Amino acid sequence: MRDDSAGIRKSLDEKRRAVDAGLEELLAGDGSRLFEAMRYAVGGGGKRYRPLLLLSTGEAFGAGRAGLLPYACAVELIHNYSLVHDDLPAMDNDDFRRGRPSCHKAFGEGLALLAGDGLLSLAFETFSLAPAPSGDPERKERAVREIAAAAGVGGMIKGQWLDISVPAAAADEKTFLDLVGRKTGALITASATAGALLAGAAGGALEAVGEYGRSVGLAFQFRDDLADAGGSGPASAPDAVTLFGREGARARLRGYVSRAVEALDREKIDSLELRFLARELEWRP
Amino acid sequence: MRDDSAGIRKSLDEKRRAVDAGLEELLAGDGSRLFEAMRYAVGGGGKRYRPLLLLSTGEAFGAGRAGLLPYACAVELIHNYSLVHDDLPAMDNDDFRRGRPSCHKAFGEGLALLAGDGLLSLAFETFSLAPAPSGDPERKERAVREIAAAAGVGGMIKGQWLDISVPAAAADEKTFLDLVGRKTGALITASATAGALLAGAAGGALEAVGEYGRSVGLAFQFRDDLADAGGSGPASAPDAVTLFGREGARARLRGYVSRAVEALDREKIDSLELRFLARELEWRP
Repeated sequence: MRDDSAGIRKSLDEKRRAVDAGLEELLAGDGSRLFEAMRYAVGGGGKRYRPLLLLSTGEAFGAGRAGLLPYACAVELIHNYSLVHDDLPAMDNDDFRRGRPSCHKAFGEGLALLAGDGLLSLAFETFSLAPAPSGDPERKERAVREIAAAAGVGGMIKGQWLDISVPAAAADEKTFLDLVGRKTGALITASATAGALLAGAAGGALEAVGEYGRSVGLAFQFRDDLADAGGSGPASAPDAVTLFGREGARARLRGYVSRAVEALDREKIDSLELRFLARELEWRP
Repeated sequence: MRDDSAGIRKSLDEKRRAVDAGLEELLAGDGSRLFEAMRYAVGGGGKRYRPLLLLSTGEAFGAGRAGLLPYACAVELIHNYSLVHDDLPAMDNDDFRRGRPSCHKAFGEGLALLAGDGLLSLAFETFSLAPAPSGDPERKERAVREIAAAAGVGGMIKGQWLDISVPAAAADEKTFLDLVGRKTGALITASATAGALLAGAAGGALEAVGEYGRSVGLAFQFRDDLADAGGSGPASAPDAVTLFGREGARARLRGYVSRAVEALDREKIDSLELRFLARELEWRP
């Protein structure tokens, strides 16, 4: 597995550049500070994890990159809107994001609020304009439905609501996994599933992608919590290390990654990229 | 015209009740404070002007109410998300809305921010779940595209950005009409147009509905500015009365209403409701 990694990294970097170029185009804008704030928020150098999942899953089931790209960029817009709003003083009150001032620190609260609204709206405008891959409107509709549900009041927004309203001390394992599954996991799962749906996957293969996405989504949050431990997260929010201890969190992270890869194996989804995107989560912390 | 008004009022009230019931269902939620804040924001007793436009236009072109209703409710969600976010301290800092504390005054800023995000997301989730009227996905797609563009960074969001960044003193007629056309007019126009598109309207009739919507959208803002004059709006934002004087603003309002009705006449769109929804704007201030 690790021997192939140079080639896989190269192909993922190519995808990442395609996503960055797509985002730049979507955010070219009208020269206003509003678009400047949106571009700043989406930034350069992000991992683009969700778009990569969408592209890799779509390609694993035979879709072409060009048709998938608008959808991939739109999920990144949704991810970044949520970061901008979560960083606001009324929410997590984070002054820094990716090593530089958060959007409201750089542009003021009013403009950051609007930039977040703009990114979310632009995501749905992008979906509305994107052609249906293979000209099949049903595929597009199902994919957009997955993403909308993940971004929505039963998904990310409920997760963020739980995050600010459940005291860390009150969080047990079940509450925590539910919170993480919504706040972080929902959009990651939907990105993988949407790629598969856009490519026409169905049945057991589609279910396996869903399980892969759910497992990778949990692994992603555990990885972040391990990397952040003693670090920057708001002390009041529940986190994996506080709840399971460092070793416990590591063991679970490994378990989620294995489960993700097993889901692919079971349905013989032989994408090296999807395997890499799962495996790299356990290499980093 | 005025003689028919009791019957028209009754039929519009019926539509309004259908919209309120639809909104209640969409916002039934999970018993959390998040949904409570969303329900509070959408409130009872709103005019539901945008949903009424969508329903009346759709019905004028032969669509059934049940198929139009989810779309009508979703535009009202979008309208209310924008009010919640605009009222926040970082934006217009309004403590009151429709005669009661604004959402952040009642629920706190963090929850109001999330409730706004929730309403916008729920709108797009609702579109994604709504069946295409007449089973024609192309009609649905075009309607959602209109609404997404109106809500987006070229529409409402740009309008709000202009509203907080253009000093009242610097606003000339052209700047002001552009601002109003985006901030208020875009979603009103899109509501009318979406109703027509969902019903399968095309060509000259569709264009007439667009002109009706643009005229009614301007009239709506002039009516509000006349009703508010010397009142509650943020003094720093440009408004029609400051710019044109009370009589000048009234004359323009009458002109927009006439233009709206003429657009209907020209294409023989004989909806009494659409005429009423335009005419009532000049009766109120």
